[in-house]
Amino acid sequence: MDVADIAWILTAFALVGLMFPGLSLLYGGMLGSGQVLNMFMMVMSSLAVTTFVYVLYGHGLVLGNSLGGLGLIGDPREYIGFNSLIEDDGAGGILWGGFFILFAAISLALVASGAAGRMKFGSWLIFGALWLTFVYGPLAHWVFAFDDEEAGIVGGWLVNNVGMHDFAGGTAVHMNAGASGLALAMVLGARRSGPTRPHSLPLTLLGAGLIVVGWFGFNGGTAGGANFLATYVVVTSLLAAGGGIMGFMLIEKFRNGKPTLLGLVTGMIAGLVAITPAADAVSPIGAIIAGFLGAAGAAWAISWKSRHKIDDSLDVFAVHGIAGIVGAFFVMLFGSAAAPAGVQGVLLGGDTSLLWREPLAVVVTLTWAFGVTWLIATIMTKIYDIRISPEDEADGIDQSLHAESAYDIRSTGMFGATSRASESRRPVKAEAKPETTVEPTPPDSPK
Amino acid sequence: MDVADIAWILTAFALVGLMFPGLSLLYGGMLGSGQVLNMFMMVMSSLAVTTFVYVLYGHGLVLGNSLGGLGLIGDPREYIGFNSLIEDDGAGGILWGGFFILFAAISLALVASGAAGRMKFGSWLIFGALWLTFVYGPLAHWVFAFDDEEAGIVGGWLVNNVGMHDFAGGTAVHMNAGASGLALAMVLGARRSGPTRPHSLPLTLLGAGLIVVGWFGFNGGTAGGANFLATYVVVTSLLAAGGGIMGFMLIEKFRNGKPTLLGLVTGMIAGLVAITPAADAVSPIGAIIAGFLGAAGAAWAISWKSRHKIDDSLDVFAVHGIAGIVGAFFVMLFGSAAAPAGVQGVLLGGDTSLLWREPLAVVVTLTWAFGVTWLIATIMTKIYDIRISPEDEADGIDQSLHAESAYDIRSTGMFGATSRASESRRPVKAEAKPETTVEPTPPDSPK
Amino acid sequence: MDVADIAWILTAFALVGLMFPGLSLLYGGMLGSGQVLNMFMMVMSSLAVTTFVYVLYGHGLVLGNSLGGLGLIGDPREYIGFNSLIEDDGAGGILWGGFFILFAAISLALVASGAAGRMKFGSWLIFGALWLTFVYGPLAHWVFAFDDEEAGIVGGWLVNNVGMHDFAGGTAVHMNAGASGLALAMVLGARRSGPTRPHSLPLTLLGAGLIVVGWFGFNGGTAGGANFLATYVVVTSLLAAGGGIMGFMLIEKFRNGKPTLLGLVTGMIAGLVAITPAADAVSPIGAIIAGFLGAAGAAWAISWKSRHKIDDSLDVFAVHGIAGIVGAFFVMLFGSAAAPAGVQGVLLGGDTSLLWREPLAVVVTLTWAFGVTWLIATIMTKIYDIRISPEDEADGIDQSLHAESAYDIRSTGMFGATSRASESRRPVKAEAKPETTVEPTPPDSPK
Repeated sequence: MDVADIAWILTAFALVGLMFPGLSLLYGGMLGSGQVLNMFMMVMSSLAVTTFVYVLYGHGLVLGNSLGGLGLIGDPREYIGFNSLIEDDGAGGILWGGFFILFAAISLALVASGAAGRMKFGSWLIFGALWLTFVYGPLAHWVFAFDDEEAGIVGGWLVNNVGMHDFAGGTAVHMNAGASGLALAMVLGARRSGPTRPHSLPLTLLGAGLIVVGWFGFNGGTAGGANFLATYVVVTSLLAAGGGIMGFMLIEKFRNGKPTLLGLVTGMIAGLVAITPAADAVSPIGAIIAGFLGAAGAAWAISWKSRHKIDDSLDVFAVHGIAGIVGAFFVMLFGSAAAPAGVQGVLLGGDTSLLWREPLAVVVTLTWAFGVTWLIATIMTKIYDIRISPEDEADGIDQSLHAESAYDIRSTGMFGATSRASESRRPVKAEAKPETTVEPTPPDSPK
Repeated sequence: MDVADIAWILTAFALVGLMFPGLSLLYGGMLGSGQVLNMFMMVMSSLAVTTFVYVLYGHGLVLGNSLGGLGLIGDPREYIGFNSLIEDDGAGGILWGGFFILFAAISLALVASGAAGRMKFGSWLIFGALWLTFVYGPLAHWVFAFDDEEAGIVGGWLVNNVGMHDFAGGTAVHMNAGASGLALAMVLGARRSGPTRPHSLPLTLLGAGLIVVGWFGFNGGTAGGANFLATYVVVTSLLAAGGGIMGFMLIEKFRNGKPTLLGLVTGMIAGLVAITPAADAVSPIGAIIAGFLGAAGAAWAISWKSRHKIDDSLDVFAVHGIAGIVGAFFVMLFGSAAAPAGVQGVLLGGDTSLLWREPLAVVVTLTWAFGVTWLIATIMTKIYDIRISPEDEADGIDQSLHAESAYDIRSTGMFGATSRASESRRPVKAEAKPETTVEPTPPDSPK
Repeated sequence: MDVADIAWILTAFALVGLMFPGLSLLYGGMLGSGQVLNMFMMVMSSLAVTTFVYVLYGHGLVLGNSLGGLGLIGDPREYIGFNSLIEDDGAGGILWGGFFILFAAISLALVASGAAGRMKFGSWLIFGALWLTFVYGPLAHWVFAFDDEEAGIVGGWLVNNVGMHDFAGGTAVHMNAGASGLALAMVLGARRSGPTRPHSLPLTLLGAGLIVVGWFGFNGGTAGGANFLATYVVVTSLLAAGGGIMGFMLIEKFRNGKPTLLGLVTGMIAGLVAITPAADAVSPIGAIIAGFLGAAGAAWAISWKSRHKIDDSLDVFAVHGIAGIVGAFFVMLFGSAAAPAGVQGVLLGGDTSLLWREPLAVVVTLTWAFGVTWLIATIMTKIYDIRISPEDEADGIDQSLHAESAYDIRSTGMFGATSRASESRRPVKAEAKPETTVEPTPPDSPK
């Protein structure tokens, strides 16, 4: 691995790191304030759970030599403790190990959106470990593990045998997370209080902005180094984000008369999802259109969902599932032979085998992700209740599970600064309102 | 283009991406909360509009071979669809295309500050496309397009014929945005409710912090690669930010007795603006002084403006226009021959021709930007009213144009957590106050 | 210095830049809202003060040739004005200069936590300059300045003569800041209003997320370039963050029954602190355990402190001091010979001299930092009162020192959007509550 490649992948790794506070805020801002901290904790703990699973056996599941040469699952023993990566292999092995941890962790964090406001926290941690093992591990192996005949390494069946085109994880990350989040939401059931309105759109916008920058690392890092491909895909990613912004806003304009910030953000993310499988296989104009269509697909799916009772609270299926499918199909139909991947879309005269290869990859991904996630969550539910009690839900999950609230009115001085002329010099007490019952700080509160 | 250069420009591209959430928050935090989301949408949609304009014809306007060899405007046909950048040209063409999109988009986003709280959103999008075409396009061509005699390429007249020194866009980005924002504010007229106080300074501080990091990419990327020049300019940028912080705080201390966070942030940004044209042409001590003087210039301009009726709501003219001029004049007077650019300031014995070259570039930039922007906005106003109605303004632009509010009291639980002992388990309803009239969620609300 | 190394160190520099808004938010969110802006200003002004001190003489104190060859302090004249760095030395001199400014500034910013809500702002700036000169300067010299016999350069005694292992500043940055913050808090005395509860945990989470990404630059940049070591340490840093998250949450679970977001964040930071001295000297599994133990150490120290009266408001001693010690001792006991540093822990059969070298470095660091900081703060206190008056403290330091408040109720519309049907079109006045006394905007308010 060239030193310049190391420089860029180190950077990409750091940029993807921005996605964790980014996703926390994107989702937290869209929830009611009583469900914010729990969402933050599900997203950030995804990082911790993935770290443990990956270093123990997860990296082998994904990138290890296929067990039995079947292309179904990697050998979990291959990277136990990351021991085989401690010494410099000249190929950036440990850096890729870290990069893959972030990929897996962000996928898991996306699934958390399906559990917003109603899942026991310990159950989330256990679910996370199981999901990484049984859902993400196999799927990522099928998609990310390339055969290497010289080295005698057998990779995953989707990428090597089906030969689908998926640049940076449209299947294993986005469609997977979308379908899994949907399954988890369905097993858990809807929140009793109904959907909440976003309590803070500034947090959501900021989160989305950090995610966009992280995506440059996500897609750009997948190029493998500081090469032309990396420059190409970061620019197509930018263009797709622009197309997605415009797409969702126009749809809102014509449907409701008023474009919204939440729509803009949703379109931007959906545009990036759509370009993820396609970033190296479309022209720049194609990237804008793919982003536009990804946003349109997400907008359609959101309005479809709103007529049903499924509480996929933060629309991970619409934004990551549907837009991901749009991106995969866009390559199939409109891939540009001039783009780095050289995949010519069927409508432009390309190989018609794409017409079964891409759909097969999509269907397999959605089916596996939905099915196995549904199974995990259902089995867990049979063993004990992974959903919080109605009382805890009514109190707000932040309060009931974590004994915290996102904002503290007593210290915010939201009612205006007390001036020196005011009767009390202790704002905390002065501003407490009679109707507010404030829980006492536990005496051994950690901070 | 060397692979290490690619690695750094990819990074710089991603860092500049941080400026979009950064500027959204910087400006949004300084506004009243009823004008926040609209500001976010103007900033973020700048990215989308620029994407469209650039990929269609904008990149040619800036970097294309000058039409007729006049140095006035590039050939818009040269990069239609970015088609000529799809294949690897060995010079990072597509990456620079993306980088230039971000430069143009952030310039447009700065202009949005002049329209805070009172411009129709569709009009903003149209204005944006016109401004990129008629204001930014020519100016950027004049400043960024270098002649290349061997290749028979003619660039812009300011940089090649006037030979002004402007490292990274003090003219085409900052003075341009400053004068354009001022013109737009004047054509629109002041907000009826008067200036708002910042509704959330934490957002403003955070936005500024992201912008600083983005600036390292902005200036460092302009160096063209991972070279000594890049290392020099990121450090002078840091020093100027430090000088700007100290400069504005000291002025506040001596003028009002109390340094403020808003002053600190303003000084930091002004310091960075001042160093932008000068980053490669001043000594490290010079960088601190340039930042200090840039902040002083901005402080002076803000207090001058506050005695007039112009609602340049977020002081883009003071912070980007005036501080940019300070930077350009600082090079003229105090440029260090030892710095990479080797431009010796006139007061240190340098070439006196700087005494007309820099001022000419400044005057041309301000005149063009102010004049053409004023013309565009005025013509648009003649055709139809680009300003929102008094009713819509009184309701708050977020509510009237976007049917959203930045914060939702019903879900924030701002009145304190309800405990289990409280009479109601549904905080949403329990906390609604009688005097609050809350608009219902539209049934087909996108999320 | 190779161009790829430049690319990565430029990046690392920019990433560390994220730590300043990050730390501002982490700390600001944990305070009551009347103390937020002052904290932001202390953190951001650290950058300005350090810029001045460093460019004047500070860089020489740290990296200059030891005065008298004693290894006690570098020559302050060596880098006056950064003049010796203006020309390209082929070793990235000016870039390292900038990188070191950020290291010193973030160390100072951490110390600010000990002064939360009660120190005069001018006194903070003076204290900062003194602390950089007398506390940080010598310590950083002892730890970061390597001997170079060929060039006849003598560095600091701790790293060269004691030969302790400290990868990226566990001593000079973290233990130093921890002990210094504690000393400052003790000299100032506790806040009269007692500890505040966090007014906005979303700010805290976001700040922590930015800090994590900054840390990849902090540790990865310390590797000196885009090399295997850099890839190794960013991954061990990630793993330690994961271990820290899990560690603190588990302790909370077993102690209080409920893991909290504040705990998660604290554990994540403590994990990163613990890995800072150890990143190149532990196995991947070791990194997880080090992070876990660092978080456990911080948790223990926080609960120990809560039984005493010291108002180390934001627990810098627990999180940076104790977790830093844990990291240093972890290397001593469990260092992995296979890791890049090749330091074998004593319990794994390594050189027993570690048993005095690491503790000596820890004790020297803590003693120097605590003692000299205590001395500086005490002497300042003897000369004049560096603490704000009880009246100013009761009013909230943001209001009394900076005439600002973090949030403005009049413009937030926190009481819900006014609809067109409401009696007043001017939300500002309509929403003002009788009991709220709002201070008027000063007529010459800077913005």
